[in-house]
Amino acid sequence: MRALVIHEGGRLVIEDRPVPEPGAEQVLVRVHGAGINRADLLQRAGRYPAPPGAPPDIPGLEFAGVVEAVGSAVASPGPGDRVMGIVAGGGQAEYLTTAAAHCARVPGTLDLVEAGGIPEAFITAHDAMVVQGELMAGQRVLVHAVASGVGTAALQLARCLGATVAGTSRSKDKLDRAAELGLDHPVLAPPGFDPAALAAEITAVAGPIDVTLDLLGGPYLGVDVAAAGPKGRIIIVGLIAGARAELDIGALLRKRLVVRGTVLRSRPSNEKAEATHLFSGQVLPLLARAVIRPVIDAVVPLAEAERGYDLVAADGTFGKVVLDLQ
Amino acid sequence: MRALVIHEGGRLVIEDRPVPEPGAEQVLVRVHGAGINRADLLQRAGRYPAPPGAPPDIPGLEFAGVVEAVGSAVASPGPGDRVMGIVAGGGQAEYLTTAAAHCARVPGTLDLVEAGGIPEAFITAHDAMVVQGELMAGQRVLVHAVASGVGTAALQLARCLGATVAGTSRSKDKLDRAAELGLDHPVLAPPGFDPAALAAEITAVAGPIDVTLDLLGGPYLGVDVAAAGPKGRIIIVGLIAGARAELDIGALLRKRLVVRGTVLRSRPSNEKAEATHLFSGQVLPLLARAVIRPVIDAVVPLAEAERGYDLVAADGTFGKVVLDLQ
Repeated sequence: MRALVIHEGGRLVIEDRPVPEPGAEQVLVRVHGAGINRADLLQRAGRYPAPPGAPPDIPGLEFAGVVEAVGSAVASPGPGDRVMGIVAGGGQAEYLTTAAAHCARVPGTLDLVEAGGIPEAFITAHDAMVVQGELMAGQRVLVHAVASGVGTAALQLARCLGATVAGTSRSKDKLDRAAELGLDHPVLAPPGFDPAALAAEITAVAGPIDVTLDLLGGPYLGVDVAAAGPKGRIIIVGLIAGARAELDIGALLRKRLVVRGTVLRSRPSNEKAEATHLFSGQVLPLLARAVIRPVIDAVVPLAEAERGYDLVAADGTFGKVVLDLQ
Repeated sequence: MRALVIHEGGRLVIEDRPVPEPGAEQVLVRVHGAGINRADLLQRAGRYPAPPGAPPDIPGLEFAGVVEAVGSAVASPGPGDRVMGIVAGGGQAEYLTTAAAHCARVPGTLDLVEAGGIPEAFITAHDAMVVQGELMAGQRVLVHAVASGVGTAALQLARCLGATVAGTSRSKDKLDRAAELGLDHPVLAPPGFDPAALAAEITAVAGPIDVTLDLLGGPYLGVDVAAAGPKGRIIIVGLIAGARAELDIGALLRKRLVVRGTVLRSRPSNEKAEATHLFSGQVLPLLARAVIRPVIDAVVPLAEAERGYDLVAADGTFGKVVLDLQ
């Protein structure tokens, strides 16, 4: 099979590799589409090694494709089924093996290549904002980097659940596009913003925030805490803007806030199965009825993977970039 | 009635005040004992005003006593019943009114004056460590200021629930006394400690921590995050050591930690009723059977309230200081 491989120094090379063999509880998938994520860029730069058990040099944390073969203990899905899911690595290859329990069905209404950009964004957004953040109808959500893959997924999900959404971006153009997707309160985050001032701007238009989905970290934590209302939940899923930040413990106590860090990649298998199961039950029906949709900025053939990575790195995209492995 | 009153400049004066009238859902309590808490010291210093509805100038956040009269809508408790509870202020007086739903029974085995030192410590410890921290048998707990009222309550509760406990104090003597109370891993926190080094010392003896009860804040947050194991819960209930601290967001994500701030005093009435209800169900039976016990360092008559406040401020006590209002 052809696979994208990270070489010394971060060079991306398309190589021939043997098709992997599924274990007893695994399925073999012929991959059609695989999203490119910021984590792939980090892995390429040598700063986010694959966990044990995942292919060490083939990037790719999500996929959609067709089941080609199944292990002896797998009852479902079966050969020919259209599936998608998160993996700890190896998504950007023509074939991969993964636990049957980590597969969700791809609704017939969705394009199988584009579906490769669904799992990371929608499972992350659902797990962080709804499951861990306990979002309820009528509450207020704040999403930083609202034009990202996870951001556009969270925005749509929150609106579906009856929440109002404030979202930040550093780009006016991206905020305009997010508004078309239903963003109630677009807020520009200018370079070198003052966290307290940005929080005041957010709460002035949106009110105190119940659930914050923070993909950025660093100074955004100050915004999250200052903008939060009583018993607010702040879920941090990324730290592009900084791995350390000052926490206002006084506000944390006074408002009785929760600050939660979360990642999908390193979770044990049973927890990935659980997150996938909840996504299948609560999010897939909305995708199937096109109430929400994957926001795909670009589909790039495997041969042009480098260009796809550049697109993600340049931070000019709205939504996802997906590799086409058909 | 006699009441302790905070005057201009923080002077404490014993004054005659009218006995309050219970509202329809309230009880009138003849107070026997009322714990003195650090929050009273803050209020006295003008830095922690009573919330609306509480007596603005009579301190006291907890009490034990006998019900003297009840409002028209109160079915239970009734006159003559021995009760205790948390209040938003006004505990340090011969009489107080409080919601019937905020009263827990005082077991017949307990001294009614000493029982005035139970509610804040045990409701805080139970609510923070067990309810919010989701402590389970076999898990590891870290308690800072383990010799305090809340610390000694948390230590005993955690041991009862089948957890092992590491505890810090700045005093070797207090750690020795905490060890007699069941502390598995006493750890001295020297002045100006390095958070990473202190965390390493804790995990070397206790292993990675599941639930941290942090009464101090400031640099202790760095200890909490560094000592936490996967999916650790850090509950902060005080900030004597500092209202701001650096948060290691990288560790927060990698270990999938939860950092939670909490207070009792400002909660809405229904949430105080819920915390009291859970305390009554899960903690009172242990107190009644003397499996756990209030740790009272000193009982001080109302006339010597100033001395009681000095004892708490001097930080030399092990457990609680209680005002005797009999």
